Amino acid sequence: MKKLLLYLFLITAGLISTVQVSAQKEIAPGVIKLQKGEIDTFTPYSLFGGKPVIEAMKALPAAKLPFDAEDVQIKITDRGCLIEVPLEDNEQIYGFGLQFETFGQRGLRKRPIVNDNPLNGLGYTHAPQTFYVSTKGYGILVNTARYTTFLCGSNQKTEHSRQQRIEERKHIATTTEDLYKNRSNGNKIFIDVPGAKGIEVFVITGPEVLDVVKRYNLLSGGGCLPPMWGLGFKYRVKGDATQDSVMRFADYFRNNNIPCDVLGLEPGWQTATYSCSYIWSKDRFPQHKEMLTRLQEKGYKVNLWEHAYVHPSSPIRKALEPYSGDFLVWNGLVPDFIKPEAHKIFTDYHRTLIDEGISGFKLDECDNSNISFASATWCFPDLAQFPSGIDGEQMHQVFGSLYVNAMDSIYRAKNTRTYQDYRSSGMFMSSRSAVLYSDTYDPKEYIQALCNSAFGGLLWCPEVREAHSAEDFFHRLQTVILSPQAMVNAWYLQYAPWLQFDRGKNERGEFLPEAKQYEEYARTLINLRMELIPYLYAAFHTYQQEGTPPFRPLLMDFPKDERLRTISDQYMIGDGLMAAPLYENKKARKVYFPEGTWYNFNTNEKYEGNREYEITTELNQLPLYVRQGTLLPLAEPVPYVDAQTVFNLNCKVYGTPTATCQLFEDDGISYDFQKGQFNQVTLNAAKGKVKLTRTKGCKIKRYQLKGYEFIN
Amino acid sequence: MKKLLLYLFLITAGLISTVQVSAQKEIAPGVIKLQKGEIDTFTPYSLFGGKPVIEAMKALPAAKLPFDAEDVQIKITDRGCLIEVPLEDNEQIYGFGLQFETFGQRGLRKRPIVNDNPLNGLGYTHAPQTFYVSTKGYGILVNTARYTTFLCGSNQKTEHSRQQRIEERKHIATTTEDLYKNRSNGNKIFIDVPGAKGIEVFVITGPEVLDVVKRYNLLSGGGCLPPMWGLGFKYRVKGDATQDSVMRFADYFRNNNIPCDVLGLEPGWQTATYSCSYIWSKDRFPQHKEMLTRLQEKGYKVNLWEHAYVHPSSPIRKALEPYSGDFLVWNGLVPDFIKPEAHKIFTDYHRTLIDEGISGFKLDECDNSNISFASATWCFPDLAQFPSGIDGEQMHQVFGSLYVNAMDSIYRAKNTRTYQDYRSSGMFMSSRSAVLYSDTYDPKEYIQALCNSAFGGLLWCPEVREAHSAEDFFHRLQTVILSPQAMVNAWYLQYAPWLQFDRGKNERGEFLPEAKQYEEYARTLINLRMELIPYLYAAFHTYQQEGTPPFRPLLMDFPKDERLRTISDQYMIGDGLMAAPLYENKKARKVYFPEGTWYNFNTNEKYEGNREYEITTELNQLPLYVRQGTLLPLAEPVPYVDAQTVFNLNCKVYGTPTATCQLFEDDGISYDFQKGQFNQVTLNAAKGKVKLTRTKGCKIKRYQLKGYEFIN
Repeated sequence: MKKLLLYLFLITAGLISTVQVSAQKEIAPGVIKLQKGEIDTFTPYSLFGGKPVIEAMKALPAAKLPFDAEDVQIKITDRGCLIEVPLEDNEQIYGFGLQFETFGQRGLRKRPIVNDNPLNGLGYTHAPQTFYVSTKGYGILVNTARYTTFLCGSNQKTEHSRQQRIEERKHIATTTEDLYKNRSNGNKIFIDVPGAKGIEVFVITGPEVLDVVKRYNLLSGGGCLPPMWGLGFKYRVKGDATQDSVMRFADYFRNNNIPCDVLGLEPGWQTATYSCSYIWSKDRFPQHKEMLTRLQEKGYKVNLWEHAYVHPSSPIRKALEPYSGDFLVWNGLVPDFIKPEAHKIFTDYHRTLIDEGISGFKLDECDNSNISFASATWCFPDLAQFPSGIDGEQMHQVFGSLYVNAMDSIYRAKNTRTYQDYRSSGMFMSSRSAVLYSDTYDPKEYIQALCNSAFGGLLWCPEVREAHSAEDFFHRLQTVILSPQAMVNAWYLQYAPWLQFDRGKNERGEFLPEAKQYEEYARTLINLRMELIPYLYAAFHTYQQEGTPPFRPLLMDFPKDERLRTISDQYMIGDGLMAAPLYENKKARKVYFPEGTWYNFNTNEKYEGNREYEITTELNQLPLYVRQGTLLPLAEPVPYVDAQTVFNLNCKVYGTPTATCQLFEDDGISYDFQKGQFNQVTLNAAKGKVKLTRTKGCKIKRYQLKGYEFIN
Repeated sequence: MKKLLLYLFLITAGLISTVQVSAQKEIAPGVIKLQKGEIDTFTPYSLFGGKPVIEAMKALPAAKLPFDAEDVQIKITDRGCLIEVPLEDNEQIYGFGLQFETFGQRGLRKRPIVNDNPLNGLGYTHAPQTFYVSTKGYGILVNTARYTTFLCGSNQKTEHSRQQRIEERKHIATTTEDLYKNRSNGNKIFIDVPGAKGIEVFVITGPEVLDVVKRYNLLSGGGCLPPMWGLGFKYRVKGDATQDSVMRFADYFRNNNIPCDVLGLEPGWQTATYSCSYIWSKDRFPQHKEMLTRLQEKGYKVNLWEHAYVHPSSPIRKALEPYSGDFLVWNGLVPDFIKPEAHKIFTDYHRTLIDEGISGFKLDECDNSNISFASATWCFPDLAQFPSGIDGEQMHQVFGSLYVNAMDSIYRAKNTRTYQDYRSSGMFMSSRSAVLYSDTYDPKEYIQALCNSAFGGLLWCPEVREAHSAEDFFHRLQTVILSPQAMVNAWYLQYAPWLQFDRGKNERGEFLPEAKQYEEYARTLINLRMELIPYLYAAFHTYQQEGTPPFRPLLMDFPKDERLRTISDQYMIGDGLMAAPLYENKKARKVYFPEGTWYNFNTNEKYEGNREYEITTELNQLPLYVRQGTLLPLAEPVPYVDAQTVFNLNCKVYGTPTATCQLFEDDGISYDFQKGQFNQVTLNAAKGKVKLTRTKGCKIKRYQLKGYEFIN
């Protein structure tokens, strides 16, 4: 007995560390979990995972890791957990969530933590992930909500120096760039998880990068399938809009034949914001129910801005108090959504808003801020404590996900799909029907973020509002049209930005001389988005079923082409389309084509693969390219999508006599498809004709074939 | 026995937390240490403190805290230590080390961690301190090397909201500035020390801000007294300079009658840099000993650039291996200076360099980097481990201090004073004779940093190299002349920057049309610096004896003038001079004068206090003002200061018939003054005359009275 107690004493005093054994387990097909030490109560997987799509994962090819799982070493020290993962020569890695500033991450130090302000390539982002994918065909996911740093082959250990050739530098640097050039090529990734007493590491197998990503998405429950109207066009009106000005916007789109599915209201709909009351303002919206009815009659969905910090005047403030963090944000309570009570109070209240006819929300300010000058109150501090026991640091990493989950759950319970905007996300979120946004506003970084988002099951809207030139505006609009959500986020613009893209002049109602022409351009581009809806919907269905990201960097589809490892300003949309957005304030750019033959979407011009072309795209065209062999269904544009919408399809068949295309046909708004209420529609090109056939899962007929064209 | 073991088990398992009691102890006069939990082995005080100047501390007035020491609450949680300190209305706080971007820190979140790249006001700096000083007359010092965050009244607790009036916002913001304005006015400072199992907090009493600062400096061993030559002019030549080009510079200064005491050599003196060999390059310096002799004959001191990352070819590499960190930096070993063996190997080697005639070093790259793009290898990672047991995070916070300490110890052992450049510092370093530098290069921030440095016993050189205009260059030169170290850091300039301040043109030898005139301006300004040496030396002596910073913000001298709480672009030099450097690319600026009457140093123009004047300063003048009642001794300029230098003093007596001035007279180069080898020289103005008297501590006569002038 004495001996046992002594042993217990030694263990608990940390004097025997050998009792911490590393365990290994396959938690889903091709996903190996390594584990050591005492795991945190709340991890991303414990909070958001746990519904892997096992059958689809089994259907993926088996893969061998380039190393033994035991080669991933986990050490537990006084500081926290240290993980070491092998790194081969010629291996590149990607991921870490919605990264803006870098693409290939080898040689860099990355700290993927929630932050509104990505800077210096440190890895800060609205949607960080402690997860990377390797070109050697595996992924490493550290299942922690703690602030974690990855040294991606950027640093070398002392022991390593004895084995390698030492580089002598004779040249004396007299520039800082030269001085500080990274001359390291480490053969390991080191991962630092301070404060952790134990850790889980998921090793996700390939064999190819795309397989790793699919497996990760399937582990997360598959991709989301947005409601069909979510793939149309969304316009967010100015923050201080009133009932009248919203109705004017509603009329503007319909009267001018510019498609629009969703109108988004910004803070002004509430009696108090920063923090939020969640009460309709009678001042600005005297009859909001009537307004919602009239908007619905005109075919609009309505989206409401809010954040999760609960104002003293909010009806749910008092009830939430016991279930909130110990720090205020803008004087608002921070609900601890991990507590079922907080989740229930918050969602019960919001259900009443939704029942009045709200199709979704814009969940703002759930990111943290790295700026101290003005806004240390932007968010709760890292040291905050929450009733569930989680601290502020870890809450930051999961807050956006908890928030969108809470809101999503209301819609799911109503058997209604939503497509929300949210400002922060994390891991295992691919099945949530929501799109990230930001206001960092660098167009090149926005496109790169679209590529990076694909590695971690995220959807990203490279949002557009004002611009400094017509090129800048329309290039941004083109990009957003070719993204998961075609949205103009005009939260501080009085008029549509194509009428005046200068913020000050817009405010004063001074329209551009070319306003009418630019409106026509915008109409054309938004119509093109409407044409693409059936194709996009099918790509999302594949995302949902198989985990294939609908928008993804080229290297996923052409893993053998090493040139693609650095191309992050072009991306695939589904299997047949490639986007190469413009962002340099001129109408021409270099476009690289992977192997095969490609067609210009606008002109049908042909390009041979494995080389680069300089290509001009006009402001009213899309920088879009079609892969040979594609049967592309284009819908006749509709002003908006509703439950009755039928798409008239004109098909284009590119460079082949035979091709097929699968479309997904359901009610477009509910989860009934999960109970078999859908048809699989097949478009088949052969013998100079295209035919449409469908399975008989439900009675809905959403597509009809109107015409077709073979392009050679 | 069983019970005892069970008790031990429960304690060690952390199940009894009540055993962690908070203790309170006066560790030096007016310094109270609060302590709770298990203290880290290595803290700033355990590494660098422990030599308080007790007698001088006793001589300071006693002070009462505005709160009970018990009101400083320490909590130990799973996350680390959380400290809460009361904060009153109308209380402002300062400090956190060499801060560039902000001055008054209330309402901000500050994270004072070592970083080369201060950004977004986060508190990152070359010389961070977990120490702040309050206008209520006390200081709070958290004795930790861990990354610590201070919420300086920026955030409010939920419990607090129940007691206060809730601000309603009716106005809807449509700008981000408006949205994110800090509307908090917290009544506590929250301090987050993640990972700590216990903590020491030093409460340093006043009664005034200056008393707190003096007490802190005396706790640190008093201020440093640089060698007299250190207060002259230093010029750092281009990185790739050779023996010949160094000698040409040496001749340039002497031939053109421009004073210069120290020539600094940049990386090129070594066979390898990034990392460092510490071996003279035979290529560029074929006879370095001869060069050193010749420079010494011409009156120059020589300073050598280096950093502490030890190149594979360095003679000390092998010996250091067992005493170095487990990560390399630029392929160089990182000595663990906490290990006596590393300290000895490193200093033994450097002693041989010093014995050849090196007066000091520029200790570069001991800061960390926040930039990941190119330079994750800039420094060792936070997760690094060192043989002493300290980790990379904590080593970052103390590395610059350990490094300068090691080098300083060699000079102390030789009974020779040095005045080094170093790029990173921390707490308890006031007695080390070294000046911080940087290359962030914003002139306004540089001046603000000079003010901020005074709160924590730091010396700062707002360095100058290239410029974008003549105003920009001379305003920078004026500022540096009025700083602890008058240095031009031309490490990438071929010629003196007053001949051509454009970097590219300088490289190509294209001199400005005004080169001769600007050289004359530079000569004038540097001569003015030489005139100020006796006065500056006396101010440093007061720093050494009493802890009074020689350069300090105005609020320290005029604590009742609340207008000074926001003035960080003017500062006191000693007791009689005030600097108000120019930095806005024009020759005039607004200068605020505290109470009393002031005189323009250049024109003798008079200004009344408690108001602001618009004042023009020419490029060849100093933006300097003299307080009424001051006896200002100005030395006839010498080309350099050596052991034999005697200063001929012309005294100016401002606005008073009677005044005195104390000067400190010693050999100027050794520590013999600590054994009484010095004279106290008194200049006394009375009855229209000035007289010089001296005590008889030693035979040295360094000052002789040449003339005087009464100014009214």
